[in-house]
Amino acid sequence: MKSFDVVTIGAGGASYPAAFRLKKAGFSVIMIDDKGIMSGNCLAEGCVPSKAIIETVHTYKRISDFGDFRINYRDILKRKDKVQILRNGLHRKELEEAGIEILKGVAKIIDSSTVEVKTEAGNIKLNYKHLIIGSGAYTYMPQIKGIEYAITSADLFRIDPKIKDLPESIAIIGGGYIGVETASYMSIMGSRVELIERSDRILMDMDPEIVGKLEPLLPDMRVHFNNSVISIEPDGDGYKTTIIDNNGKSDSVITACVMMATGREPLIPEGTEEAGIKFNRKGIIVNSSMQTNIPNIYATGYVNGIAPLFHAAKRQSLIAANCIMSGDMPVDRFQDNCVPFTVYTIPNMSFTGITPEKAKELGIKYIKSKYKMADDSLAEIYNEPGGELDLIFDEDMKIIGGYVIGNDAGNIINEISMGLSKGLTARDFAELPHQHPMTFEGLDSAARKLF
Amino acid sequence: MKSFDVVTIGAGGASYPAAFRLKKAGFSVIMIDDKGIMSGNCLAEGCVPSKAIIETVHTYKRISDFGDFRINYRDILKRKDKVQILRNGLHRKELEEAGIEILKGVAKIIDSSTVEVKTEAGNIKLNYKHLIIGSGAYTYMPQIKGIEYAITSADLFRIDPKIKDLPESIAIIGGGYIGVETASYMSIMGSRVELIERSDRILMDMDPEIVGKLEPLLPDMRVHFNNSVISIEPDGDGYKTTIIDNNGKSDSVITACVMMATGREPLIPEGTEEAGIKFNRKGIIVNSSMQTNIPNIYATGYVNGIAPLFHAAKRQSLIAANCIMSGDMPVDRFQDNCVPFTVYTIPNMSFTGITPEKAKELGIKYIKSKYKMADDSLAEIYNEPGGELDLIFDEDMKIIGGYVIGNDAGNIINEISMGLSKGLTARDFAELPHQHPMTFEGLDSAARKLF
Amino acid sequence: MKSFDVVTIGAGGASYPAAFRLKKAGFSVIMIDDKGIMSGNCLAEGCVPSKAIIETVHTYKRISDFGDFRINYRDILKRKDKVQILRNGLHRKELEEAGIEILKGVAKIIDSSTVEVKTEAGNIKLNYKHLIIGSGAYTYMPQIKGIEYAITSADLFRIDPKIKDLPESIAIIGGGYIGVETASYMSIMGSRVELIERSDRILMDMDPEIVGKLEPLLPDMRVHFNNSVISIEPDGDGYKTTIIDNNGKSDSVITACVMMATGREPLIPEGTEEAGIKFNRKGIIVNSSMQTNIPNIYATGYVNGIAPLFHAAKRQSLIAANCIMSGDMPVDRFQDNCVPFTVYTIPNMSFTGITPEKAKELGIKYIKSKYKMADDSLAEIYNEPGGELDLIFDEDMKIIGGYVIGNDAGNIINEISMGLSKGLTARDFAELPHQHPMTFEGLDSAARKLF
Amino acid sequence: MKSFDVVTIGAGGASYPAAFRLKKAGFSVIMIDDKGIMSGNCLAEGCVPSKAIIETVHTYKRISDFGDFRINYRDILKRKDKVQILRNGLHRKELEEAGIEILKGVAKIIDSSTVEVKTEAGNIKLNYKHLIIGSGAYTYMPQIKGIEYAITSADLFRIDPKIKDLPESIAIIGGGYIGVETASYMSIMGSRVELIERSDRILMDMDPEIVGKLEPLLPDMRVHFNNSVISIEPDGDGYKTTIIDNNGKSDSVITACVMMATGREPLIPEGTEEAGIKFNRKGIIVNSSMQTNIPNIYATGYVNGIAPLFHAAKRQSLIAANCIMSGDMPVDRFQDNCVPFTVYTIPNMSFTGITPEKAKELGIKYIKSKYKMADDSLAEIYNEPGGELDLIFDEDMKIIGGYVIGNDAGNIINEISMGLSKGLTARDFAELPHQHPMTFEGLDSAARKLF
Repeated sequence: MKSFDVVTIGAGGASYPAAFRLKKAGFSVIMIDDKGIMSGNCLAEGCVPSKAIIETVHTYKRISDFGDFRINYRDILKRKDKVQILRNGLHRKELEEAGIEILKGVAKIIDSSTVEVKTEAGNIKLNYKHLIIGSGAYTYMPQIKGIEYAITSADLFRIDPKIKDLPESIAIIGGGYIGVETASYMSIMGSRVELIERSDRILMDMDPEIVGKLEPLLPDMRVHFNNSVISIEPDGDGYKTTIIDNNGKSDSVITACVMMATGREPLIPEGTEEAGIKFNRKGIIVNSSMQTNIPNIYATGYVNGIAPLFHAAKRQSLIAANCIMSGDMPVDRFQDNCVPFTVYTIPNMSFTGITPEKAKELGIKYIKSKYKMADDSLAEIYNEPGGELDLIFDEDMKIIGGYVIGNDAGNIINEISMGLSKGLTARDFAELPHQHPMTFEGLDSAARKLF
Repeated sequence: MKSFDVVTIGAGGASYPAAFRLKKAGFSVIMIDDKGIMSGNCLAEGCVPSKAIIETVHTYKRISDFGDFRINYRDILKRKDKVQILRNGLHRKELEEAGIEILKGVAKIIDSSTVEVKTEAGNIKLNYKHLIIGSGAYTYMPQIKGIEYAITSADLFRIDPKIKDLPESIAIIGGGYIGVETASYMSIMGSRVELIERSDRILMDMDPEIVGKLEPLLPDMRVHFNNSVISIEPDGDGYKTTIIDNNGKSDSVITACVMMATGREPLIPEGTEEAGIKFNRKGIIVNSSMQTNIPNIYATGYVNGIAPLFHAAKRQSLIAANCIMSGDMPVDRFQDNCVPFTVYTIPNMSFTGITPEKAKELGIKYIKSKYKMADDSLAEIYNEPGGELDLIFDEDMKIIGGYVIGNDAGNIINEISMGLSKGLTARDFAELPHQHPMTFEGLDSAARKLF
Repeated sequence: MKSFDVVTIGAGGASYPAAFRLKKAGFSVIMIDDKGIMSGNCLAEGCVPSKAIIETVHTYKRISDFGDFRINYRDILKRKDKVQILRNGLHRKELEEAGIEILKGVAKIIDSSTVEVKTEAGNIKLNYKHLIIGSGAYTYMPQIKGIEYAITSADLFRIDPKIKDLPESIAIIGGGYIGVETASYMSIMGSRVELIERSDRILMDMDPEIVGKLEPLLPDMRVHFNNSVISIEPDGDGYKTTIIDNNGKSDSVITACVMMATGREPLIPEGTEEAGIKFNRKGIIVNSSMQTNIPNIYATGYVNGIAPLFHAAKRQSLIAANCIMSGDMPVDRFQDNCVPFTVYTIPNMSFTGITPEKAKELGIKYIKSKYKMADDSLAEIYNEPGGELDLIFDEDMKIIGGYVIGNDAGNIINEISMGLSKGLTARDFAELPHQHPMTFEGLDSAARKLF
Repeated sequence: MKSFDVVTIGAGGASYPAAFRLKKAGFSVIMIDDKGIMSGNCLAEGCVPSKAIIETVHTYKRISDFGDFRINYRDILKRKDKVQILRNGLHRKELEEAGIEILKGVAKIIDSSTVEVKTEAGNIKLNYKHLIIGSGAYTYMPQIKGIEYAITSADLFRIDPKIKDLPESIAIIGGGYIGVETASYMSIMGSRVELIERSDRILMDMDPEIVGKLEPLLPDMRVHFNNSVISIEPDGDGYKTTIIDNNGKSDSVITACVMMATGREPLIPEGTEEAGIKFNRKGIIVNSSMQTNIPNIYATGYVNGIAPLFHAAKRQSLIAANCIMSGDMPVDRFQDNCVPFTVYTIPNMSFTGITPEKAKELGIKYIKSKYKMADDSLAEIYNEPGGELDLIFDEDMKIIGGYVIGNDAGNIINEISMGLSKGLTARDFAELPHQHPMTFEGLDSAARKLF
């Protein structure tokens, strides 16, 4: 049986940063991945390709004010594919240079020092000193009649995707961030969008104050709130999706395409339970150093259910690496109050830290200060006056959260997160002369209103 | 004679933030401005309108990969004018709401408690307790034969500007940031650009390492280094600009348009010398609290020559206000090591703090860590692989500077400046999980390379 | 009627820092004080003289290991008086230099711009723009038969105090910090101490975990828990104090001296209610900027009930000054999570921030790290091995509180408070090489245990 | 040949913190020490025993105001011995619990993976992956006639020391900190002190501004500046020390005892040069991560000449450990601008960061703010009005250094060092309400003077 200092299950953002760091420190490392390639769902069918499409559509939207241009969906996909192929190549090169092996296969945990991998060449047992479970998530598909007619995000985003032309119309089942992002760019490109959401609002698990401000700014789409899907069936060239609302009233929408966007679930590796690793419905249970109840076994990224974000997974992966390098001591910790989260709708919506609803829940008195995009030079230049930037402070004027809707949301949120991480105050933001004329000016402007 | 607690000379970024703050604190305030409107050159003919054009051109450039689009220069100007008109309106409303008066006229300082204003209705004397000189700068026009044929940035950028159509070709005299920014967008729009620069490189007063990395990424332009202009004369529908190089060799360029971009000079108000306020060639001399040698007289913004930037002027203005509110005590200070500076070429170039050349000058040993745009998802999505992000640390791993060339440079630089302002370390940057897939990821990636 | 920009009620720590700051900023200022001198109860009969006695006794205790020395209580009082007289002189000089007047008298608030002062020369009305109520507290004396036989802390601590010789025995009524501090030094000096406390523990309003660790280290004293006083009556050369416990069982103690230490109450100035200023049982209600419901009226120090400490009062006073200088805007805030509190028993006990009991109340998960005085070189040198230093971190390893019992407690607590104020982490403490061999080493030692 | 992951040369503060940390992380570790015990010179004959004497003498001095007490030098030594014995016992227990072996012997470096140890049982070769050289320093003894009559600090401070009674008079050769500390307590105890110093001031390598303020506060001693020692010879019951000044003028002093305090030199282990490890006169050359030119060999503490302090050595030792745990990557750095330094004279003198002379050397403009001990309650209580606390800020009001002479110097300096380490500002110090009435109040008082 081959022995490694460190084995990772998965080769995505939850695994490879640790693998590289540990290899550099002299540990022997192997990554096990069912796709056999590095970077996981994020690059294969997630954040990178969706962002490639969304950014291009956003740029197109901005320029549309200046003429009656047309842009081809196939060209957008070409750019997307190019980025994915380029990044796959970069990753292969990095692996080679570091001398790290990826074993293609599916891992099964045997015990606290052994893992078994089903590969094309048969089952292989590996011995380890430290294990990092970074197995990620899978797309949850509910039991609906005709579910086989529905596409998933992978059909839109993987290299050479199934959906090659902009559907004339689309029914999107699920109003979470994947559903709403897709709805957003499809609508701008000209699709008729029918969004079906079980609850009474979109982005259900996010702060209603923030979502409530985003909603009126979204592109045209028809949202069926409080509706569940009963069945999908072929109907002419398209599909008929039958839905039923809370009162039992039934209706249907006919679209060229139906997409399931009902969320993702942590992918608990086989053998987890038998090996005595504790987990629950949200994922594998870890402490703030990503250690499971077995101290030499770590769970990082989506599989622990703490923060379903690629950048959080990377950080957690490095935390595991730091602890492994210190003899499984919890020397590094995940600070979950300062992770930025962006929904790539058009406009973007970002938030971090304690948002208003959370503050109310926790009974924290807060002071909020707002900067409106309508007053921002750059937003005016882009003709995107909707949205705002809100900073949230506690009574000592320390920043505890913030959100941005509109221009540069996904950029600005980082500095707010840094403020959270380092305990910065309203004065710290007010006194930094942010670059003019950029929307970052809103950070000092908003903070200054309190003085 | 009317008395005010505070008089400001100018109503731009160096003056109005203080005026608003002091008014809120109960001080009586008046602003004196020769244009009679708030926001100064920045809005009238500077950063805001130029940025409006540049951003639109950049967006256009990005979309051009996807088709053979044409965009009309007059439409770009329309958007620009619209933003300027909108912002003038916003400012008028703010002034009204605050109840602050702008006196249209030219100020002359009489003594440490009196100022005289030449207005259309005659000369008016005003008594003050505190004076803020925020008079800004004027465009320097060298004594050249035919200078009257040259346009300045104001002719491109003011509302309803003189230059209404894209010139087929343009000679730009001066390779400072105004010259290079203009050259950059004109070139992308299709003008033939001839840039004439006296020294042997563009952006002479900026770090050669950084500029050297920007230059190969700039759009097509012909640069005449080591050349001075002798004369400008009409030639057919255009102009002939005669230049002479360091070796005395003469040459000429013929273009549809000639632009002077030879820089700006501090506008020292009349009476400054007589009132005993010290100044030199760089501007009015102040301490780090913006106080001149006369403690109740402040000089803020361009006129003190510290940092010729609108956002620096605003901060300095507020410093003056804070000191005035504390009885002319130096309670607030301008931290000049953490001002972000962005050159809005395409691509953008930003820097802050101690750059490599400065570090060498000061004998500071530094550690630099680089992130290449070629490795950045978002830059790849935009097809803008040129450029990089560099963080500069001292030997204690505290950040002392940084620069960014390429995507989101003018955004990312703010978080680096915040790091400088608060003494953050490589670890602080490495441990923040920046939003993915955004170029801000480069901040943690670069910092992490050191661990 | 005389007019002042600022009037303060009181001339103690809650008032004079603001008075000096505002005078320096050019405001006209007057302080009203019933004693007519600066520095309030703290110097007259509070922290300074009690500390003078306690420090001398502590030094005496330390040297006693090295010989059978005797020290005279009258000499201790002489040193105490000398310090008080010296400081009164310093304060008079400071007032003169600043040109600030203290009006001797009792203030009555008339309305939001008028105060009336009863002076020896009759009633005087003063007009003000801003009022700071820094009236402090008075010693609460319960209605007990024979209360007139009891002394208070003032009889021990004022210049030329009533009690000039160490009482052979003392009954101290009240186990709050004044009672316990007095008990502590009296016991070391040789008095027999009988402490009577209504509840079932001393220092009732402090964290039981911390107090529980202090108690076994205190010098000999007999504590009557769960007992109230019924009466005090003369008995021979001394007094008989009759007490009754929770079960109705009566007992008595006979001592040379009886001291009331039942606490202090905020001194709400006359007219507060009529002027419409809101207050409750704890004191005058203020926001975190020390503003009452009437924005130009501030309440600072003991009178607002937030933190009954001289150093907190000084800080609050300056917050009021900062807000007044900014036009009654809440530009500065009191951060009440980082005030150090020390009980000057022998040994000292200090704490700050969120202590264990508070954390449990708030449902905050915390990590505690301990350093024992038994392992500390300096504590060993002093032969004081009892006590410990505990740092309390949240799950992100940010410091949220701490306590110290034993050597240098009242010094070390300051750096912990600074850590709280600036959001420092375990790593920040662990990485600072504190001075050896000093008890401050415990700060890095304790933090390091977590790595 | 036995193999270890980590070998340390020395078992003092430069070695044992790393040894414990690495053992905890799972590394196999051995320490080589010529004394065969943990804690090095610091405990055996350095900071701990000298501090034990000094603190007792200081306490005695304080109490002497209150009576004509006598204290026996033998009793002081008894306390000192007790502390040393106690700490040796604690260390033995820690070693046992951690399971770390100390090999008694003298180490010779063979190559980058081998070390040879001369032990009583013969020479032993050890193989290592990482080596930490923490060999410390030895007392430098100049070639003087009669040097054998002189004692060193070890004769005063080791357990059961040679000098058991207070010498009636002592000549101390060398005005560095060991000489001056010894002079200081000997003088207070009643010895006649003759201090002989080659240069024109004491504490030659420290800032003259600071030393200049300490000097007048020192106890009685006669200092022979600009004098070198020619010879020491017996004279009656004592010794005659012959000195010669810069002008060639000779003199002599006759004392009961002569002490050499001419400094310490780094103890470069045998084989260092042959193994190719670079060093110079100051010690073994390391980067800020304590790595020598051979990346798996570290030099920590006195032997690298960076900061000759036990607390600096401990921190450096942990830096080496952190780097070793990360595969010899420089992940941790020594921040040498924030090490506190205290001279345990009576009164104490402490400093940290950039002191005035250093600032002038570096051309840094600084702002200094002073708090006088004469104004400090606690210093008055101790009747120690001499001395002061000075904070030094750069022009951005960031703290860059500080010093304290007088009460609690060695405590207060720690918070200043923390300020340096974390980039704190004058405002940060001014806004913390430090514990009253303690000398730490000086930190906010001094900072506040700038506002």
